[in-house]
Amino acid sequence: MYIEYKKPVFITTTASVAGKKESEGPLADSFDETTVDDYFGMDTWEKAESEMQSRCIKHLLHKKGIGKGDVNLLCGGDLCNQITSTAYTMREFEFPFLGLYNACSTMAEGMITAACMIDGGFADNAIALASSHFCTAERQFRTPLDYGGKRTPTAQWTVTGCGCVMLEKAGKGTAITAAQIGRVVDLGVKDANNMVDAMAPAAAQTIKEYLKNSGTKAEDYDMIITGDLGRVGTKLLKELLEKEKITLNNHNDCGLMIFSQNQNVQSGASGCGCGATVMAAEILPKMANGKLDNILFIATGALMSPATTMQGETIPCIAHLVNIKGQRETKKL
Amino acid sequence: MYIEYKKPVFITTTASVAGKKESEGPLADSFDETTVDDYFGMDTWEKAESEMQSRCIKHLLHKKGIGKGDVNLLCGGDLCNQITSTAYTMREFEFPFLGLYNACSTMAEGMITAACMIDGGFADNAIALASSHFCTAERQFRTPLDYGGKRTPTAQWTVTGCGCVMLEKAGKGTAITAAQIGRVVDLGVKDANNMVDAMAPAAAQTIKEYLKNSGTKAEDYDMIITGDLGRVGTKLLKELLEKEKITLNNHNDCGLMIFSQNQNVQSGASGCGCGATVMAAEILPKMANGKLDNILFIATGALMSPATTMQGETIPCIAHLVNIKGQRETKKL
Repeated sequence: MYIEYKKPVFITTTASVAGKKESEGPLADSFDETTVDDYFGMDTWEKAESEMQSRCIKHLLHKKGIGKGDVNLLCGGDLCNQITSTAYTMREFEFPFLGLYNACSTMAEGMITAACMIDGGFADNAIALASSHFCTAERQFRTPLDYGGKRTPTAQWTVTGCGCVMLEKAGKGTAITAAQIGRVVDLGVKDANNMVDAMAPAAAQTIKEYLKNSGTKAEDYDMIITGDLGRVGTKLLKELLEKEKITLNNHNDCGLMIFSQNQNVQSGASGCGCGATVMAAEILPKMANGKLDNILFIATGALMSPATTMQGETIPCIAHLVNIKGQRETKKL
Repeated sequence: MYIEYKKPVFITTTASVAGKKESEGPLADSFDETTVDDYFGMDTWEKAESEMQSRCIKHLLHKKGIGKGDVNLLCGGDLCNQITSTAYTMREFEFPFLGLYNACSTMAEGMITAACMIDGGFADNAIALASSHFCTAERQFRTPLDYGGKRTPTAQWTVTGCGCVMLEKAGKGTAITAAQIGRVVDLGVKDANNMVDAMAPAAAQTIKEYLKNSGTKAEDYDMIITGDLGRVGTKLLKELLEKEKITLNNHNDCGLMIFSQNQNVQSGASGCGCGATVMAAEILPKMANGKLDNILFIATGALMSPATTMQGETIPCIAHLVNIKGQRETKKL
């Protein structure tokens, strides 16, 4: 479903908190906070992920100079069963809360939903948030951490990180101006260690539908950035779009930016925290600084569960897209 | 967060499919379809829940006389980890899809989100959907089905059922006119067999905030109906609201309507399919027939997971509310 917002929905503040491995990567200095202890001082990985979210929200409120009572709504989620990381964090902040789950596309889903609530006239501001934690995700979706299983070349490393953005009706500069809500695609992939073969077609479909609906071309954008397709998925995405006569010369992937090649992450990074942190820490600040002016952010989600994987099911995927414009573009609107 | 829709968002069609035990209860004749086989012809409970959803959507499309390409958006979810029942159903229909998770409050969350997408001008129509299945939920949240554990007096029976509604910009008659997006409440309850002690305070908070924001009183409504508080939770909700000088004389609970007392369901029914089916099969048709004119539907969700329960965590809860008006009320607007 194509959305053209009536007015720009401004992204006024961003915040991010990331884990130890992320603090050793190329974006180390961009996060608001990193940790040397992936437990974040807690006694379970699940509580650690909530604590990471809590710190991220506090950075956002602090940077914005507001209190928790000033927030109209939070739209967000995470990868844990029943999105408990987010639900438990919400105890502390008591924001009106719409819990979302579309796997690693949750950050884009949150941005779209929050922007609709604002542009529709229901809220003056809303936070979009997503997180993932290597230790909650890997043991839940794949194998026990202590098992030390060999990782396949197509495997991706789940980011330990939380990113959130404050969307507002009033503002100037960077803003969400359009979006495409994705549809589920399932081409029959069954390998939970190769989710990008399943996710790339969803990204291709959403990009293609968005370009058609908006009457724009791939080359109109400074950057087309996907959430976590990694090396393998990026290659496939480009091939799929070439067949539709769409050339991605200006593509990047959050899953290829957060770690360096020598960090042993195989095909790249993944997790809803991947797109969320890279957008909050790197891309959106670049837009605020005028270094990027018109981008598409496409986050892809693989919607299987450990139960469906064990039952031999295929992996349905979805991709949501937001068009974000910088100040040179939004002041024309 | 209080929402007053600019125009009524019409509920033009409803559909419901329910399981065997539900087909032996007082609402047996109200569902569009019931089954004698809770597997719905599938080989796993998870596939059964997706099949039940699929049939429910087909009833909706058939009653409405439209094809799957005519649907702008689906907002919905279920209780399975990673809301897989809904994600897998979406493969068949290819609707633009926003996956939601707020446990048993998901039907109200879906109705609110879908209504915002329509009233905000982003969609002409949208389906809100939620389901639960006794066999996917009980084994996931509590004990293996074959274990045959003794049920406590506070236990509730998870409904096997799916309900969905078509919301539209154009229409007449029954419509959503206002809503309250809930905030997480956690009073420290830890017993997964007594979730209503956790959920009732969330319902009380949302009802109290809604009445204050809307400037209305409990007695202004023909019916105030909760999703699945059951007998124990209903008693607690009334006590909590009495302390706030709010008397619920016109209250009912979907969890007390779908089964009869002799069906051995202890405190009543639960699950997001409970509120969804009772609304779709019983309450909304009564509104369409002019038997009810102004109601509040409050669905409550217990946001724990099996992992957090095992980790000794408390149960955070949330309640979302929609105000639904009948034709006598909406034609005045």
